[in-house]
Amino acid sequence: MSQRQVIQMSTSHASYGVCVLGTEVFLDTHRSTPKGATSFDVHATSAVTVHIIHSPMTKPMLNSRWPLDPDIEVVVTIGVTSKTVNDNKVKISYYGREENEISVAWLYLTCVDISLDVDVSRNGRVRSKGKDKAKWTWGPDGQGAVLLVNCDKDSPSTVGTDSSQVDIHTPADLQDMSVMLLRTQGPSSIFADYQLVLHVSESDADKVRVFHAIRSDSHPRYKPVLGPGMLSCLLDCVRSGENTFYVEGLAFPDAGFSGLVSISVSLLEVPHKYSPGTPVFTDTVVFRVAPWIMTPNTQQPLEVFVCSIKRGINSNEVFLEELQALLRKANCKMTICSEVESRSDRWIQDELEFGYVEAPHKSFPVVFDSPRNRGLKDFAFKKILGPDFGYVTRVPPGCDACSLDSFGNLDVSPPVTVRGKEYPLGRILIGSPLPWASGRRMSKVVRDFLYAQKVQAPVEVYSEWLSVGHVDEFLTFVPAYDRKGFRLLLASPTACFKLFQEKQRQGHGEATQLVGMVGCERRSIDDILADEGLRNDNKHVQRCIDWNRDLLKHELGLSEQDIIDIPQLFILRGSRAEALFPDMVNMLVLGRHLGIPKPFGPLVAGQCCLEERVRALLQPLGLSCTFINDFFSYHVLSGDVHCGTNVRRKPLAVKWWHVVP
Amino acid sequence: MSQRQVIQMSTSHASYGVCVLGTEVFLDTHRSTPKGATSFDVHATSAVTVHIIHSPMTKPMLNSRWPLDPDIEVVVTIGVTSKTVNDNKVKISYYGREENEISVAWLYLTCVDISLDVDVSRNGRVRSKGKDKAKWTWGPDGQGAVLLVNCDKDSPSTVGTDSSQVDIHTPADLQDMSVMLLRTQGPSSIFADYQLVLHVSESDADKVRVFHAIRSDSHPRYKPVLGPGMLSCLLDCVRSGENTFYVEGLAFPDAGFSGLVSISVSLLEVPHKYSPGTPVFTDTVVFRVAPWIMTPNTQQPLEVFVCSIKRGINSNEVFLEELQALLRKANCKMTICSEVESRSDRWIQDELEFGYVEAPHKSFPVVFDSPRNRGLKDFAFKKILGPDFGYVTRVPPGCDACSLDSFGNLDVSPPVTVRGKEYPLGRILIGSPLPWASGRRMSKVVRDFLYAQKVQAPVEVYSEWLSVGHVDEFLTFVPAYDRKGFRLLLASPTACFKLFQEKQRQGHGEATQLVGMVGCERRSIDDILADEGLRNDNKHVQRCIDWNRDLLKHELGLSEQDIIDIPQLFILRGSRAEALFPDMVNMLVLGRHLGIPKPFGPLVAGQCCLEERVRALLQPLGLSCTFINDFFSYHVLSGDVHCGTNVRRKPLAVKWWHVVP
Repeated sequence: MSQRQVIQMSTSHASYGVCVLGTEVFLDTHRSTPKGATSFDVHATSAVTVHIIHSPMTKPMLNSRWPLDPDIEVVVTIGVTSKTVNDNKVKISYYGREENEISVAWLYLTCVDISLDVDVSRNGRVRSKGKDKAKWTWGPDGQGAVLLVNCDKDSPSTVGTDSSQVDIHTPADLQDMSVMLLRTQGPSSIFADYQLVLHVSESDADKVRVFHAIRSDSHPRYKPVLGPGMLSCLLDCVRSGENTFYVEGLAFPDAGFSGLVSISVSLLEVPHKYSPGTPVFTDTVVFRVAPWIMTPNTQQPLEVFVCSIKRGINSNEVFLEELQALLRKANCKMTICSEVESRSDRWIQDELEFGYVEAPHKSFPVVFDSPRNRGLKDFAFKKILGPDFGYVTRVPPGCDACSLDSFGNLDVSPPVTVRGKEYPLGRILIGSPLPWASGRRMSKVVRDFLYAQKVQAPVEVYSEWLSVGHVDEFLTFVPAYDRKGFRLLLASPTACFKLFQEKQRQGHGEATQLVGMVGCERRSIDDILADEGLRNDNKHVQRCIDWNRDLLKHELGLSEQDIIDIPQLFILRGSRAEALFPDMVNMLVLGRHLGIPKPFGPLVAGQCCLEERVRALLQPLGLSCTFINDFFSYHVLSGDVHCGTNVRRKPLAVKWWHVVP
Repeated sequence: MSQRQVIQMSTSHASYGVCVLGTEVFLDTHRSTPKGATSFDVHATSAVTVHIIHSPMTKPMLNSRWPLDPDIEVVVTIGVTSKTVNDNKVKISYYGREENEISVAWLYLTCVDISLDVDVSRNGRVRSKGKDKAKWTWGPDGQGAVLLVNCDKDSPSTVGTDSSQVDIHTPADLQDMSVMLLRTQGPSSIFADYQLVLHVSESDADKVRVFHAIRSDSHPRYKPVLGPGMLSCLLDCVRSGENTFYVEGLAFPDAGFSGLVSISVSLLEVPHKYSPGTPVFTDTVVFRVAPWIMTPNTQQPLEVFVCSIKRGINSNEVFLEELQALLRKANCKMTICSEVESRSDRWIQDELEFGYVEAPHKSFPVVFDSPRNRGLKDFAFKKILGPDFGYVTRVPPGCDACSLDSFGNLDVSPPVTVRGKEYPLGRILIGSPLPWASGRRMSKVVRDFLYAQKVQAPVEVYSEWLSVGHVDEFLTFVPAYDRKGFRLLLASPTACFKLFQEKQRQGHGEATQLVGMVGCERRSIDDILADEGLRNDNKHVQRCIDWNRDLLKHELGLSEQDIIDIPQLFILRGSRAEALFPDMVNMLVLGRHLGIPKPFGPLVAGQCCLEERVRALLQPLGLSCTFINDFFSYHVLSGDVHCGTNVRRKPLAVKWWHVVP
């Protein structure tokens, strides 16, 4: 309801009004036209510009008067702020058939300047008088300010995120907010007759909170003025000058919330003491709440999280030592979650996903806590949320999460271009059942959240054919110097059978897997190749992976040369598949250093033929393969290296507001 | 996840597959390429078309063989349905550096035809093999089938709407549904190795129900196969031929539901008895659920609903007689709701709104029941819902409705064109507070519903300045033969004061209003004009109406000549306004016959000067004004003629799917 101001003209008394610099005032002359009048003209003092809006058929008469056509509109604008009240004058004269002046309508106008300003051009500075401030557009040439969800915790004394607090506890918290300035100018006495109201719509009020910086005495005070349950605020002590506001986001884009939030200031005329006031002018700014963004494997790793499990046959002490060695090579920090903190839950990949938010003035990492909620349930909230480290979660109704809600089932591709459409932040991958199949599926609240972030448009792949059902069981991405900057690795039964047949032909059919593993059945290449049941299982698995392969080629714009088949066998338990030996694509990717589950494949000339093949496939890309023994510590419990680790990575260099989703 | 079928080729054994007529099959040759091969060619039997997809740089060699470039793809299509299984053959030959044939991969293909069809061209007929069936587009050249919400009650034995029943109770109910045909063709034995599954996505499953017409014995049976909790259905007895399905809508478009519903059929290959099957082919059709559409005052009236209140000082017996006389002139049916049915609630305008739904094959009226819920609460559900008369309602959380939820606060404009944009079904008008003001507002669930219907894009006007707060207290639309086919009537204090001043100047200052009304204060024109408080009240009211006037000009594309000011005074009670005398714009519009609240204005020469003025304004448009006495029966209870009546009108001639929203 953005509107022109309307002022009723009258021939019986002078009218008075206020006009905001650069805006149109519509002079309603129709209902004051005196009887017998046939034409009119308009004169005004120098700062006033008069616009006569008429149809192409209506023309001014020779004496520059206008016929009294009901569709003619008189609009005025003023280009200079008033020095004194009523210093602009407009006179409308009405003329009769004999060209005589019948009567005159006078209007006295005071021009004020009111402007609500934000960082429209996304350079970290608030520019005065931005154009189209109520419009938000994507792309490098786009405009519109950005808001961060204030989901970190800058003050140690508070419980939960800063956005859950109605007050500001530490000045550091202001850094997470966007600055909004209100500038007013005009004769001070005019503001006594009008009200200035800052307001937000009902639907936006729970997405945003606005604090007014008030300089009282020596130290500044920040008064909450808009937010949940606070739709408007009368700015009582307005005079010429500048008011500073700090704006924080309270909610990420989600189903039913595009991410756009508008804030307006209105100048109200209050003609009657009981009247709610009618607006003379409204200025609106729009923010978009920054989306939560995931980081692909091709981004530089900053910190690897892993759980320590000391006791029992499935202790991971040796695993941690091997991992530590890899991290030293990759020059990456390791953060160990103790058995107390993890409550003996080792699957840290599944409990959380690291991402970030970014605005022109600030960026910080944000952990997305999965609704999976096993032993690591409280880890993200208690141990990761902190100063400049945000937290977000989504909980399905009834807290009803399934295995596909684990974030091992959530991944993101490196940047891709698909038939001309660019995804410079990559595309999110979610594992799902086939589209019509009911049963296990990632919770709608989580999927809705992921889709609503928009800038990494999700692709749902088919992972429900696996017992655990996670995408990280059959695919991963590794960096590469050539082509698109990465390769997609896919687990491949066909490649494994082909390798084993090759080895059999070379006379190594008796070579066995799992050499030296206590309590494990050691099967030879001959034995595996002769197992008809295993062959059928893997035929099905290969079809499922091929279904995804074609989908991923299509949705990520990949060609055959962008994909590498990693030899791997699966076995069906009931109707669903599990890796037969440590699942090599379930790897940890740290720059060019890969931590790959040690497959314990058949030894040929003292060498594991699986490791040898994987090295042959990946080393030419400049990748360094470290095979890590996760057999008893992870594999036998239905996961591998990737499932047991989690990496915080460097944000992508591309600004999300430059993306065109 | 619409995908090509992928078939793995092999040089060690022949491959077999099924291909759907007109679809692409991708032959995956890359992983079967023999060692040493440098080129290949493809030959096939006559019905098969081979497509080699390659980059512009790759060219066939002189001998029409292709180099083994990893980015070359081999795709085949078949144009004729198979007579027998495996009657199409494809042979890929691989050649070495010396142009010798190294090995060969064979593929046997059976071609079947599968097509899911609906009334894509919106002419009431199901066409076979429509193009782009999964696409729904607006406009006269648009395409895509339409679904009705089966919200009427065709069988008297059921409780609630037909859509709330899982079964079909009467064959008449099939008329409210859309027909969907599944056509299959091919060698019958092939269907034994494959499954056909009809399916709907999780998010669409609660919006739609599908019945399969099964001809068993003599009488047809309709088996529910898809719907809430039924995401897929295995069609077990598929053979060449046609299957008929009936589809009903269960939900109107709303917040979070665009109105689009997709239904698919998939052909599944089931290579393993435990496997969920992998899809070979999917055909998808899309429906849009027909929106609920309101009818403007310019539509022909069919039936007027009114309540009978017999007892007490506010009895409306005389009112009903006067109304009956008007309806006779307007040739319109009158339906009286008894005092028992209405539980003494006379405000039938506020309890419900008549609209309709339309599909190419069927249209019926639908009553929208307001969440207002006073005495007339059950009337729409119990007395109006019936065969081919639908029902819909929206209930705010906690049943928390306010005065602005009454449907006297809901109106629709006649068809308009606004700066080139056409609204051929008009625009819905909703009364609201000023955008930032908290307090009384129409429930979000009702507004969400109205916005989601899309084809009558709502405009929120400012009505909250009124005590009752309804749009019908200050505006209405009447038909006109000229200009846009209608006029907007606005209540106008300015026009009323002007009229009274005129009469005062003519020497009628002592003329009094409310002559002959028992127990009412009779005020003279002089008295009214001298009342400074009343003048201030009406100045505020005029500002509020002017605010709407400019908004409506802008949002409905109106000019001054499309608006008529109807003289009316208001008075403030606290900070909100009420009509000072019967509110003339609160009229009943029945074609050219208007039932206007009798204003009991000052008598000048034995004539009510208000009636005289209103006649002078409206009769030139061909309108006939009947002033109806509603003073004690409605006006003193805070409503007038419009509030006490409700009109079912003829649907608009324009098809809603021709609108471009």
